[in-house]
Amino acid sequence: MKNAENKRDNMNEDKFEKIKGFSIDSKMTIESLARNMKYMGFQATQIGRSIEIIEKMKKDSTIFLTFTSNMVSSGLREIFAQLVKNKSVDVIITSVGSIEEDLIKCEKPFLLGDFNFNDSELREKEINRIGNIFVPNDRYIHLEKILQPFFAEMFERQKKTGKMISPSELVFELGKKCNDKNSILYWATKNKIPVFCPGITDGALGLQLYFFKQDNKEFGIDVTADMNQLADIIYDSKKTGGIILGGGIAKHHAIGANIVRGGFDYAVYVTTATQYDGSLSGARTNEGVSWGKIQKEINTVCIEGDATIIFPLLTPFLLK
Amino acid sequence: MKNAENKRDNMNEDKFEKIKGFSIDSKMTIESLARNMKYMGFQATQIGRSIEIIEKMKKDSTIFLTFTSNMVSSGLREIFAQLVKNKSVDVIITSVGSIEEDLIKCEKPFLLGDFNFNDSELREKEINRIGNIFVPNDRYIHLEKILQPFFAEMFERQKKTGKMISPSELVFELGKKCNDKNSILYWATKNKIPVFCPGITDGALGLQLYFFKQDNKEFGIDVTADMNQLADIIYDSKKTGGIILGGGIAKHHAIGANIVRGGFDYAVYVTTATQYDGSLSGARTNEGVSWGKIQKEINTVCIEGDATIIFPLLTPFLLK
Amino acid sequence: MKNAENKRDNMNEDKFEKIKGFSIDSKMTIESLARNMKYMGFQATQIGRSIEIIEKMKKDSTIFLTFTSNMVSSGLREIFAQLVKNKSVDVIITSVGSIEEDLIKCEKPFLLGDFNFNDSELREKEINRIGNIFVPNDRYIHLEKILQPFFAEMFERQKKTGKMISPSELVFELGKKCNDKNSILYWATKNKIPVFCPGITDGALGLQLYFFKQDNKEFGIDVTADMNQLADIIYDSKKTGGIILGGGIAKHHAIGANIVRGGFDYAVYVTTATQYDGSLSGARTNEGVSWGKIQKEINTVCIEGDATIIFPLLTPFLLK
Amino acid sequence: MKNAENKRDNMNEDKFEKIKGFSIDSKMTIESLARNMKYMGFQATQIGRSIEIIEKMKKDSTIFLTFTSNMVSSGLREIFAQLVKNKSVDVIITSVGSIEEDLIKCEKPFLLGDFNFNDSELREKEINRIGNIFVPNDRYIHLEKILQPFFAEMFERQKKTGKMISPSELVFELGKKCNDKNSILYWATKNKIPVFCPGITDGALGLQLYFFKQDNKEFGIDVTADMNQLADIIYDSKKTGGIILGGGIAKHHAIGANIVRGGFDYAVYVTTATQYDGSLSGARTNEGVSWGKIQKEINTVCIEGDATIIFPLLTPFLLK
Repeated sequence: MKNAENKRDNMNEDKFEKIKGFSIDSKMTIESLARNMKYMGFQATQIGRSIEIIEKMKKDSTIFLTFTSNMVSSGLREIFAQLVKNKSVDVIITSVGSIEEDLIKCEKPFLLGDFNFNDSELREKEINRIGNIFVPNDRYIHLEKILQPFFAEMFERQKKTGKMISPSELVFELGKKCNDKNSILYWATKNKIPVFCPGITDGALGLQLYFFKQDNKEFGIDVTADMNQLADIIYDSKKTGGIILGGGIAKHHAIGANIVRGGFDYAVYVTTATQYDGSLSGARTNEGVSWGKIQKEINTVCIEGDATIIFPLLTPFLLK
Repeated sequence: MKNAENKRDNMNEDKFEKIKGFSIDSKMTIESLARNMKYMGFQATQIGRSIEIIEKMKKDSTIFLTFTSNMVSSGLREIFAQLVKNKSVDVIITSVGSIEEDLIKCEKPFLLGDFNFNDSELREKEINRIGNIFVPNDRYIHLEKILQPFFAEMFERQKKTGKMISPSELVFELGKKCNDKNSILYWATKNKIPVFCPGITDGALGLQLYFFKQDNKEFGIDVTADMNQLADIIYDSKKTGGIILGGGIAKHHAIGANIVRGGFDYAVYVTTATQYDGSLSGARTNEGVSWGKIQKEINTVCIEGDATIIFPLLTPFLLK
Repeated sequence: MKNAENKRDNMNEDKFEKIKGFSIDSKMTIESLARNMKYMGFQATQIGRSIEIIEKMKKDSTIFLTFTSNMVSSGLREIFAQLVKNKSVDVIITSVGSIEEDLIKCEKPFLLGDFNFNDSELREKEINRIGNIFVPNDRYIHLEKILQPFFAEMFERQKKTGKMISPSELVFELGKKCNDKNSILYWATKNKIPVFCPGITDGALGLQLYFFKQDNKEFGIDVTADMNQLADIIYDSKKTGGIILGGGIAKHHAIGANIVRGGFDYAVYVTTATQYDGSLSGARTNEGVSWGKIQKEINTVCIEGDATIIFPLLTPFLLK
Repeated sequence: MKNAENKRDNMNEDKFEKIKGFSIDSKMTIESLARNMKYMGFQATQIGRSIEIIEKMKKDSTIFLTFTSNMVSSGLREIFAQLVKNKSVDVIITSVGSIEEDLIKCEKPFLLGDFNFNDSELREKEINRIGNIFVPNDRYIHLEKILQPFFAEMFERQKKTGKMISPSELVFELGKKCNDKNSILYWATKNKIPVFCPGITDGALGLQLYFFKQDNKEFGIDVTADMNQLADIIYDSKKTGGIILGGGIAKHHAIGANIVRGGFDYAVYVTTATQYDGSLSGARTNEGVSWGKIQKEINTVCIEGDATIIFPLLTPFLLK
């Protein structure tokens, strides 16, 4: 019976933190709010725990930030830019929409719309909808005006060097065209923070490439060229930490590449996706452990919710 | 063509707010954070919009707060108590688990556990799990010690008056047994804020009632008795506003009862439920308009996410 | 190293079933489809596993069926009625909306609408929306015509017996008023299958009760009266099995009451709710094990998805 | 008042279908089940409506099928292969994981596991988890043995032609290596059905490419090369129809490319993702209308649920 008693001892209440709320007022700081959330239970606890992981990550890790393009559609764009400006992250992996939208926003803002607006009416008025964000079509005409001469320039470079450009070089060069202190690319280029974009021909940039190639058939992008650089960064890191916002190819690329070193040492996931369909977007950090995409579950946390609310609560701890 | 031009004019960009992020630091206040969120897009925008609705609601409405019992399992309990102490809400509607857990927590805390703990092991150790919150079984033995003499007392009252007690009276009387400044019931009784609980025999309180009735067959609770009081409050209100956290019977009871006056004037929903299955828990405020549970969509907002993160961001504006 | 080798042996591939799809044609039967799903992976596997649990449950268990009222709004009503007619389930627990809507549908159908219809327009036309189901308001006028004389009848009974009616007796008596072979209540009363409804004063029935009590103040319903009958059924069962569709008070009441015998022996959950917010509606069967609401995880399964698609795939196995 | 009356007339009940369930038995066919679902309400109705859209699509459209790689992990792989064998779809767009897993499964099956297995234990045993599907690590060693000589062969081709291969050519050539009648690639190559894969360097194939390039630096893949072919197919189609399973780059690429012709004429989405975060994965067909990714909402439907359950119900109608 001794064994059973021991077991009971192991669940001794004193070993547990207690659930408790806290007194709230409007002058409370984000930092205080986020720290107090740890003892709330449910997802608030995940906020509190992620702060502790970020604090460890900051000490000795190469920090990878991944996000989906809808986050750049939102005001998270300026918050990401703040992190890149501050060199608070070391590597960015994202989908091509993020590149497009950061470029557009250097010149023209997106508009605050509504989830339930009539889409046929929007179509008539040439306004594109992303959730409750509206993007008038002239933004894409503006994008065309940036990209066509840019591709021509890159084609000249290809002819000169005899080498196709890689996606990350393309993004680096685009950053030189930005003149907006709120731009992610502006600061990424300035601070030499690499931006990887494994699905570079998707989206509007892909369409522009298609138009360009009508008259410039030889121009190309070698997607295989980035893999060496990404792998080198991962191999050379003492430790790696991932801030993985949303799912998709950005998430998969980051955790997949970290397999070469046995997985991320630290990871914070923020997601709205579900696990029950076996999708990579919804996979939690524990599933990553089975693959060697994550080293150990202990230094990871997954927060379920929309990044536009969650991420601002974590940002102060990444900036520090 | 004039008509088309006019239409185009109606979508004039100047009429829209612009999407923009903001500069973040750890000393930023909750109030500033929550206000800035409005221009972020997606759910952050819903936070910003809900603040504006709460500010209107505060001016001239009877405010109904509804929540599910898991929120009382969490640290939201102390935040709800703060609102009731401050008389920031006028009516509470909830499920019976909230009553039980507020009572238990007057004496013994819940523990911060883990979502992925082995449940068979917890069973052996007599620990109940609610998500990542652990509740040792002795809490329910403690509850039994409160409820059995309490029911006996109420039975005496029934014999004297010849009338069965209503659920809200039962909760009011239970509040007198609380001696914890962090208790919702303590303040509800003190401040005479009614707590309605239409499913009073569900849960552990229901089991305790069942045990009590083994020897006291004549004791009963008349659920129909509360409806007059609730309807009177609604009829007598100049305007009504709902803070509807989660779904279930608490949500339905609040919006259903407001049909008698054509619906809530203001409503803020916080939910994790989906619309696609036609469930009441997932129904949005616009569906409520068709029923006359909500007056007009314009003064309502639904925020999707876990209340343990969302509600602390709204609380300062309710407290004011 | 022997230990490690042994461990590896334990994961011997031969011990696992293989993932495999199957050849599909339009003449394939539901039974064949549902059985083949087991080897598909993800939620299709959960369908396959639930069939095996239902087959065990059928042998020696008292079967509890719980559902939310939106399911009775849908065509699942006729499928539930088929099960009750066939005596394929032994106990029903549901919310009051189910009672109302089954009654209404005995006379007048609900209409196939659209999720995205304009709700203000529906309001003008006095049509209530439940997801993509439309309910013209005259259905509730019809309900009033049934309930007011019925309550008068029940009040006479109360005066005669000196005892308030219980919710399950009230539903039983209502079943006598149904004359529709597609009605759940019709068959429940005919086959003496008890229908428990712990939140009986919620919803339209609650509003009608409120109106009735304006002139009949003494009429009441004693919710505590049902608990003895429910507990007796559970105590007297050799084994218990739960088909738990959706969440809410119906789910909680069924699993909570089964605590008195250490939990359900078998359980199939169908849900659209999430676990991350600690809600009872989203709680999986393993969480139930910690509480003694579920005996062991092994004989349980949770299928994630909308019951209108999932449940027809399980029905043939319950009917057998 | 005439106007109001007219409006009321427009909502005449006779214009609506009625909600009704149906009699179920185990011998009912999939076809009958799926057709009857239309009148059930909620997501069952979406199944019924999608059948009608598929039947229209079959008449005159180029049909695009997109899916995520977890679906190929599941038994949907064999169902997709059946459609490709039968030439029931004309174009496939997917993520690179689908290519890898179809290749692996030509030789070795995946295993039926469990969602809640301990992942650290799986790691020790070198088993990777995808939801409740297990993939022993030797599958990836097997993949390496296929890909390394294949890349060498393709590098020879590049040297000969002086042109980098496109992703779709690469997949076409890989199909020649398959000798499994249950393989998607086997039939795609045999029936010349193009498979587009815009994120070709993600995943295990990307890692293998990285290893290959260590000694073969000049080998590359030109992702821009596919865009002409894809655009030509879209321009040349009388109409286009999309069967869009899941989200991610596959979904975005299909609907984004269809912008060149004003959008898909017909679309059926199957998704588990949410709209509230503004993600492309969760975007519904109406959002696509604002972009010109979808022509009109009328010929589209979105079914919410796991494709392993949903898609087998639609397959008979695609096969016809």
